Amino acid sequence: MNLLDNIRIVLVNPMFGGNLGSICRAMNNNGITDLAVVDPRPDMDMDEARKFSCNARAQLEARKEFSTFEEAIADCTVVAATSARTGFYRDTSYTPREFAPVALESAKDHKIALVFGREDKGLLNEELAMCSHIIQIPSSDLYTSLNLSHAVYVCCYEIFSATGIFEPSEESAPEADAALRERMFGMWREMMIETQFVHDQKLDHMMMGLRRIFNRGKLTVPDCKILMGLAKQSMWVADQWKKNRSD
Amino acid sequence: MNLLDNIRIVLVNPMFGGNLGSICRAMNNNGITDLAVVDPRPDMDMDEARKFSCNARAQLEARKEFSTFEEAIADCTVVAATSARTGFYRDTSYTPREFAPVALESAKDHKIALVFGREDKGLLNEELAMCSHIIQIPSSDLYTSLNLSHAVYVCCYEIFSATGIFEPSEESAPEADAALRERMFGMWREMMIETQFVHDQKLDHMMMGLRRIFNRGKLTVPDCKILMGLAKQSMWVADQWKKNRSD
Repeated sequence: MNLLDNIRIVLVNPMFGGNLGSICRAMNNNGITDLAVVDPRPDMDMDEARKFSCNARAQLEARKEFSTFEEAIADCTVVAATSARTGFYRDTSYTPREFAPVALESAKDHKIALVFGREDKGLLNEELAMCSHIIQIPSSDLYTSLNLSHAVYVCCYEIFSATGIFEPSEESAPEADAALRERMFGMWREMMIETQFVHDQKLDHMMMGLRRIFNRGKLTVPDCKILMGLAKQSMWVADQWKKNRSD
Repeated sequence: MNLLDNIRIVLVNPMFGGNLGSICRAMNNNGITDLAVVDPRPDMDMDEARKFSCNARAQLEARKEFSTFEEAIADCTVVAATSARTGFYRDTSYTPREFAPVALESAKDHKIALVFGREDKGLLNEELAMCSHIIQIPSSDLYTSLNLSHAVYVCCYEIFSATGIFEPSEESAPEADAALRERMFGMWREMMIETQFVHDQKLDHMMMGLRRIFNRGKLTVPDCKILMGLAKQSMWVADQWKKNRSD
């Protein structure tokens, strides 16, 4: 079973089609597909919603609409409200990162809801009262009000990240071992001599500098082959130059 | 010095005013204020940009425009590109969370840049080649392409979160100590007797159940006072009822 299937995004009385569309995209970017919209404005710009949903158009069409908040959350155990304000009902809050494991633990057995209020005035006190958890999204004190789709995105992102599903693409080429690295460094040493880049007494010092540069990151087998090819070619050129000079 | 002042957001050739405005808001939500725009489209809808920037209108006006990418990053040490694709130049990548401490460490002494490509085709290979780091944003394999403002938002959010500046609002009321809790439980026990809610032989069992319910979360001093007030009132009502009965 996919835990993310048990995560529902609930939008209460949203105003802007652009936000609704962006939210569909943000959900699908994070593998979340259950969208409930409570009492959407009748004048919402659905062309804009479709435009902003991009490749998540199917998600937009699959949204469920409810006339009341109670109906949208009825089958959920954990019901988490996002709120920028603090005060009554808002004293003990989770960050999205703290909330993610709570959500995934409950999602093993139950539907859970993440609730987002209106763009202009958020959630009403009677709506907050029906929520079991409060999420407060980190923000600068200088500007705490988030775009609605950004708020949904970051909550989905934290839950998706906490699943551990995502694996960043790793370096696929094998790392060079010491034998290959030393062969490469040997060729560079030889190149520095052949091209008369440094005098004998400076050679070891220069080699230390080069080793430091190349060892600062990882060297792969193809990296070493490029560096050896370059050294080889420089030595060939140096050889030609000496031959011409002696002709 | 504020480390966030050394973080520059670089947008290369962006198309949509709505994204530009949302990005200004996302930056200011996370305390970041240095915005560079490279070669913006001449037909960009700036009314839309102003609308989406909301209270970050000053940030929009304070953006710096550059005609080339080179100029926009010239004074930065770390130059991190965001890229959804993998392949050449993209083998070793950071997640935004992994990148955040790298960014803050460099920002102690230098300007650093986070670079975001065009909405439709991202960054060109020659632009990627000029970047020192690659950031890959976690996303579902089913839909990896993020809205531009969401991509900027999550990078800013991770860096802001890593500063540790944000402190979630905590419960401000003091937690109840055992003495107060026991006084409250004692009154509830008495209430259950006075209201004849349970028979003597069930009383201890019921008290265990109630203790479990109330101890599942933290109880504050005001919480205990509410619960004691409720018990006291029920006992008063029970007393009235018994008096009436005996009249």
